[in-house]
Amino acid sequence: MENVSKIWLGPLPQDSPYVKPFRLYYVQNGVEKNWDLLKVHDSVAIILYNTSRQKLVLVRQFRPAVYHGIISSAKGTFDEVDLKEFPPAIGVTLELCAGIVDKNKSWVEIAREEVVEECGYDVPVERIEEVMVYRSGVGSSGAKQTMYYCEVTDADKATGGGGVDDEIIEVVELSLEEAKRMIQQGAVNNSPPSCLMGLMWFFANRAPGAKA
Amino acid sequence: MENVSKIWLGPLPQDSPYVKPFRLYYVQNGVEKNWDLLKVHDSVAIILYNTSRQKLVLVRQFRPAVYHGIISSAKGTFDEVDLKEFPPAIGVTLELCAGIVDKNKSWVEIAREEVVEECGYDVPVERIEEVMVYRSGVGSSGAKQTMYYCEVTDADKATGGGGVDDEIIEVVELSLEEAKRMIQQGAVNNSPPSCLMGLMWFFANRAPGAKA
Repeated sequence: MENVSKIWLGPLPQDSPYVKPFRLYYVQNGVEKNWDLLKVHDSVAIILYNTSRQKLVLVRQFRPAVYHGIISSAKGTFDEVDLKEFPPAIGVTLELCAGIVDKNKSWVEIAREEVVEECGYDVPVERIEEVMVYRSGVGSSGAKQTMYYCEVTDADKATGGGGVDDEIIEVVELSLEEAKRMIQQGAVNNSPPSCLMGLMWFFANRAPGAKA
Repeated sequence: MENVSKIWLGPLPQDSPYVKPFRLYYVQNGVEKNWDLLKVHDSVAIILYNTSRQKLVLVRQFRPAVYHGIISSAKGTFDEVDLKEFPPAIGVTLELCAGIVDKNKSWVEIAREEVVEECGYDVPVERIEEVMVYRSGVGSSGAKQTMYYCEVTDADKATGGGGVDDEIIEVVELSLEEAKRMIQQGAVNNSPPSCLMGLMWFFANRAPGAKA
């Protein structure tokens, strides 16, 4: 699905709307220190469970930052990439439906829009339950993410999903057994900790037979 | 514990060893796209459980990136911070013992060193079990983190911990009940998803009475 034919690297433009790097200076116990960090957008993520078919609904996509992270860990910095040595498929992730908070709307409304845009389920905000709020990237960005849980049925399916504009996002349905294996295996699918945490929360609190 | 007396912001220097921002260009389905991202260090995190006193061992510290993330979400960019409006305590996090991979040593050895430096327990690598590998910051950095689990006893306690050089890290012991409340509450303590996930993993797999 990634269908990537060329990859190269350049400097970060000063006016990037997505990554704003800084050095923060502070005095702690009388000692001047500093910490390099960046501002990234806050975000939402949604644990989606289709009760009609007892499947968890996740998304697969090519993630440039993950692809870059893998290559730069392996060989340091680079200009253009040899796609035979590093096939783009290594940068594909399996994640919860998610999106950045970059509109003047409520967070749950942004979550609702991501669910329909990425996964094709059209549900009202009343059916989207807030699960947890946390800070990710505590060493680098400290961005806030709110996690939601939403049960959907086949009757809520309005479109095929797949993202907006030129996003290329594949909707993936996992059986409960497949999702359980995933939280045992970890990074096989380049999944972020928020996704693995969301699945663990689901099994502890909402899966058929869960105690809570 | 944070004892921070002044905070101000400056541009990221070109030669920052910690945050290296780039723009990655790629051609997907014939369309040229780009993504702003950064290279940060890969890292390790360790779920520490003191079996002598049935306590989970975590760390508290002032995190500049979290502090900056909270302020910039509230009011956009800034120069110097009014510490009355934004007390440094809002940037204190409760996390697993963790550290970046910046030495030419095995990852488990780096984990072992973080356990003794931050928390004061001196244990051989044979007692540190790999739990899971994942990518964090899939939208911005894609850095790899390996999570470990280690059981310690009071007999392993060699020092008070607290970090090296001018690090200021407070060791915190949580009862099982306190840790359970934490994974229900989420961001009360600015904890990152990896920490919440590690605690969920512990309760599902290693806590007294866990099934696994």
